[in-house]
Amino acid sequence: MQIGMIGLGKMGLNLVKNMIRNGNDVVAFDLNEDNVKLAQEAGATPASSNEDLVNKLSAPRTVWIMVPAGKPTDSTVQELLGLLSKGDNLIDGGNSFYQDSTRHGKEASEKGVNFFDCGTSGGKNGALNGGNFMIGGPSAEAFNGIKPLFDGISQKDGYLYTGKPGSGHYLKMVHNGIEYGMMEAIGEGYDVLDHSPFDYDNEAVAKVWVNGSVIRGWLMELAQEAFAKDANLDEITGRMFSSGEGKWTVQEALKQGIPVPVITDSLYARQRSEEEDTFTGKVVSALRHGFGGHAMEKK
Amino acid sequence: MQIGMIGLGKMGLNLVKNMIRNGNDVVAFDLNEDNVKLAQEAGATPASSNEDLVNKLSAPRTVWIMVPAGKPTDSTVQELLGLLSKGDNLIDGGNSFYQDSTRHGKEASEKGVNFFDCGTSGGKNGALNGGNFMIGGPSAEAFNGIKPLFDGISQKDGYLYTGKPGSGHYLKMVHNGIEYGMMEAIGEGYDVLDHSPFDYDNEAVAKVWVNGSVIRGWLMELAQEAFAKDANLDEITGRMFSSGEGKWTVQEALKQGIPVPVITDSLYARQRSEEEDTFTGKVVSALRHGFGGHAMEKK
Amino acid sequence: MQIGMIGLGKMGLNLVKNMIRNGNDVVAFDLNEDNVKLAQEAGATPASSNEDLVNKLSAPRTVWIMVPAGKPTDSTVQELLGLLSKGDNLIDGGNSFYQDSTRHGKEASEKGVNFFDCGTSGGKNGALNGGNFMIGGPSAEAFNGIKPLFDGISQKDGYLYTGKPGSGHYLKMVHNGIEYGMMEAIGEGYDVLDHSPFDYDNEAVAKVWVNGSVIRGWLMELAQEAFAKDANLDEITGRMFSSGEGKWTVQEALKQGIPVPVITDSLYARQRSEEEDTFTGKVVSALRHGFGGHAMEKK
Amino acid sequence: MQIGMIGLGKMGLNLVKNMIRNGNDVVAFDLNEDNVKLAQEAGATPASSNEDLVNKLSAPRTVWIMVPAGKPTDSTVQELLGLLSKGDNLIDGGNSFYQDSTRHGKEASEKGVNFFDCGTSGGKNGALNGGNFMIGGPSAEAFNGIKPLFDGISQKDGYLYTGKPGSGHYLKMVHNGIEYGMMEAIGEGYDVLDHSPFDYDNEAVAKVWVNGSVIRGWLMELAQEAFAKDANLDEITGRMFSSGEGKWTVQEALKQGIPVPVITDSLYARQRSEEEDTFTGKVVSALRHGFGGHAMEKK
Repeated sequence: MQIGMIGLGKMGLNLVKNMIRNGNDVVAFDLNEDNVKLAQEAGATPASSNEDLVNKLSAPRTVWIMVPAGKPTDSTVQELLGLLSKGDNLIDGGNSFYQDSTRHGKEASEKGVNFFDCGTSGGKNGALNGGNFMIGGPSAEAFNGIKPLFDGISQKDGYLYTGKPGSGHYLKMVHNGIEYGMMEAIGEGYDVLDHSPFDYDNEAVAKVWVNGSVIRGWLMELAQEAFAKDANLDEITGRMFSSGEGKWTVQEALKQGIPVPVITDSLYARQRSEEEDTFTGKVVSALRHGFGGHAMEKK
Repeated sequence: MQIGMIGLGKMGLNLVKNMIRNGNDVVAFDLNEDNVKLAQEAGATPASSNEDLVNKLSAPRTVWIMVPAGKPTDSTVQELLGLLSKGDNLIDGGNSFYQDSTRHGKEASEKGVNFFDCGTSGGKNGALNGGNFMIGGPSAEAFNGIKPLFDGISQKDGYLYTGKPGSGHYLKMVHNGIEYGMMEAIGEGYDVLDHSPFDYDNEAVAKVWVNGSVIRGWLMELAQEAFAKDANLDEITGRMFSSGEGKWTVQEALKQGIPVPVITDSLYARQRSEEEDTFTGKVVSALRHGFGGHAMEKK
Repeated sequence: MQIGMIGLGKMGLNLVKNMIRNGNDVVAFDLNEDNVKLAQEAGATPASSNEDLVNKLSAPRTVWIMVPAGKPTDSTVQELLGLLSKGDNLIDGGNSFYQDSTRHGKEASEKGVNFFDCGTSGGKNGALNGGNFMIGGPSAEAFNGIKPLFDGISQKDGYLYTGKPGSGHYLKMVHNGIEYGMMEAIGEGYDVLDHSPFDYDNEAVAKVWVNGSVIRGWLMELAQEAFAKDANLDEITGRMFSSGEGKWTVQEALKQGIPVPVITDSLYARQRSEEEDTFTGKVVSALRHGFGGHAMEKK
Repeated sequence: MQIGMIGLGKMGLNLVKNMIRNGNDVVAFDLNEDNVKLAQEAGATPASSNEDLVNKLSAPRTVWIMVPAGKPTDSTVQELLGLLSKGDNLIDGGNSFYQDSTRHGKEASEKGVNFFDCGTSGGKNGALNGGNFMIGGPSAEAFNGIKPLFDGISQKDGYLYTGKPGSGHYLKMVHNGIEYGMMEAIGEGYDVLDHSPFDYDNEAVAKVWVNGSVIRGWLMELAQEAFAKDANLDEITGRMFSSGEGKWTVQEALKQGIPVPVITDSLYARQRSEEEDTFTGKVVSALRHGFGGHAMEKK
């Protein structure tokens, strides 16, 4: 197939290489010209703007957007809806909030453009060598038009048409929520080991857990790799960042009115790690001092 | 009544003053002679040892122990069980673990000594001016023998005979577990205010909440006092310490098999505040880097 | 002062009585005529519509709205902004979401109407005998115009001008978040007592805690009253409902990016109590069966 | 190697078959004769008692115990320590509490017997076709004596000598703690999907997540299998049981003083699922009624 790729960051560029390796023709654009050159070196046709990219594609066109979620994605979608024609396909492969995607789907359908919201998992390596995709869109029939693309760039059985627009990014959001919980569980387990009366080799532990245990999986393999490089993670701090999907999952559960304590506490642990100190703690300390005369730690 | 008081720290000394003000005769001992002098100045008869203290009391004797929980309390109880006689009363007013008190009750009953485990709440000020006491012991009849003491030193309706030995300290343990949850709730609320788009006066907020709101109570009064002294708690850190009862409450709930998420998370927030960094966080950060190439914070 | 009261439910009617007892003239309206009659019996002048109520007040008018949050409040505010004149005062005493109140404040200020968002605490009894109020509004000067009203109907020191519009309902929201945490803490403590090896008298425990303990306060007094009526709460289920402010507090904290584990877990405990069963549980049960052959409970 | 296997339940019998398939000679005993017959049919030499089993082995003997944790394991270990000789090997492959294993290690070493505490993961299928083992013991040298056994019955790289006695079961305990957290995270994610505005096919979702996503692993494969059999888990309830290791992990973390919120919340979710109703909820409901007149649900 012929695909236009907009956004050539670490994920977008790897996807371009993956697409080309799988026999697709790729026209590539990024605001950063250096990234366009890297795509060109990988075999893509360079484009100088979104409009140029669209002009270089034959109808029905397929354009994949891989730019940051929020405003950048929104403005790119809006511009492309002005450039694309009825029957063209527009894929948002970024981490957009699902309600944005539902709206984009509506706007696209008014112009006859097929909008697909595509949650992308599997990391940089998956993007390059076989990714994981959860794709919402106007209909299963419309999805059939871009299916050959996913047959090539995915892991075997590694893509799913999930239903109407928004459902792909929604599923990716929940996937990341689960990911938060799993990672925190692994972290907490290792923290207990770290304080244990025994003397474990973190890498060896991850290795044995990778091979046949109930908790085996990719995250444990990544733990093994991480400990192989830095046996006790002495080189890094425990400051955990987050990019939004975990929070969205909790917000969604709040709207639904169902408890998701593990996903929530995973998020809170990350947020706490970004704070040097807490006002909560100051208040508790002051109250303890108030009734019991317990020492407060002075600054 | 005539009472022997062993342990003249901030709580013990205040109790001595309270007892004397209420017409009791107090014989006082502490390993620190300065504390004994302070008790003497307050009107108590000084003693030079546990044995001397017991000898200065007339049968049936009543001895109140106010020493740190654990080994100090245990060894004091053991020594006193050797000095006291059938029909004497022994009160442990400290924060002992309830199973220790159950054991002490058993040992005392074998010698015919009435052992009472007395959980003490109300803080230093309560100890001085009218405290709060939850008292386990061999029987309601035996408790009647020391009731006059509590009629004087307690707030009105501020003491309770709770049942067999251990039940007093158990109730105090749970009281403190609730206290942990309440304090954390207040702290979290103030943290939200601190990050709010509005500009609240912390003391004024505590003051309005003290006067007629649903969450009024002593802890809110203490919040008002704390903010009066240090409007935004700029002078202290959020490092919260803990002395054991919250953890015991969670351990007890684990044994019972019932969920106590709020008390647990209050404890965890305190523990987290005592850590500079966490191994959990390092592991999560390393895993995020592993699959997504997200930046890790280097030390 | 002369006040128009719209909304004569359990809170509104009690406020009317409180206002009248404190020497105010009240014009009262409710969609339910029976409620208007009750207000009339209490000494209020009845009105037959919002418009009639406004007409019965002399400028500068003061209207207090006490209707359900959300659409009912919003449409009432909109109608009143059409009826009121420059310099009039409009007070929303309900549990509105603070962003609605910020918007209402903006709309009102465009017409020269002083809008006050008034969070009301203290329950039905407070509304009748001395309530607790947190009031946002256009300025401290504007608030001075309605201050005499609050001097009468509040507990001593039981009201606070909190700043710009929205800040009153925001503070009430956080107050309720704290309330959730405190109530769950008390509940968990009693649950531990209920499973303890001892035999506590729930009412007696609440009573002793009310009188001098660290956790004394109105909620504990209410616990004492509840246990006095139903010693082990055998007559009710543990289904806890919630009316929104707790959830809003958590949503606000999520936006702020700070952890509020105790308030969150209090909310989750309530939500869980409204579910008969969980899909989470089914999935965990199925997974346990999958690897270990553990029994699943069949329906 | 020649091994004696005591305990022929679902795990023990599968291990026997695995051992025999890998060229080991197995002498097998179980209190249930039917199980002994099944082992015999699989190629094992039957034994009629622990003593008979020991007598049928040549020195240095290796005996593997696979009986329920706690008293059954303890009494079996005690009996065997009386039957075995210096230089013999005793392996506890069950889910024993690690402090029991530390004690067993001490007792064994006094008799010159090598005691190994072997945490076994991988489920029934792993026991049969290649398991996962975490093994503590007196020394790496002593472990070399039984290494050939594990080379055969494990997944490749699927066993680890973890250090001194107790460390094997400790690591298995933490493994299960992580497992609790991971399973709850998956469950919560599916619960959100179940309440979503979209219409997901649970099995298809698990399938796509198995193939290339970040959260791929054995638990997700088991989810796929479970949904393949019962698409929406309509046939089961969400009552989750637990066998102890999750609770032990939390208890251990409490002793260490570090927060493990996710593992704890996973445990609490299970405990809550085993309760029809909670006293916590009753108290909260009664308090809400007390201040706000909110309806309580009558039984």
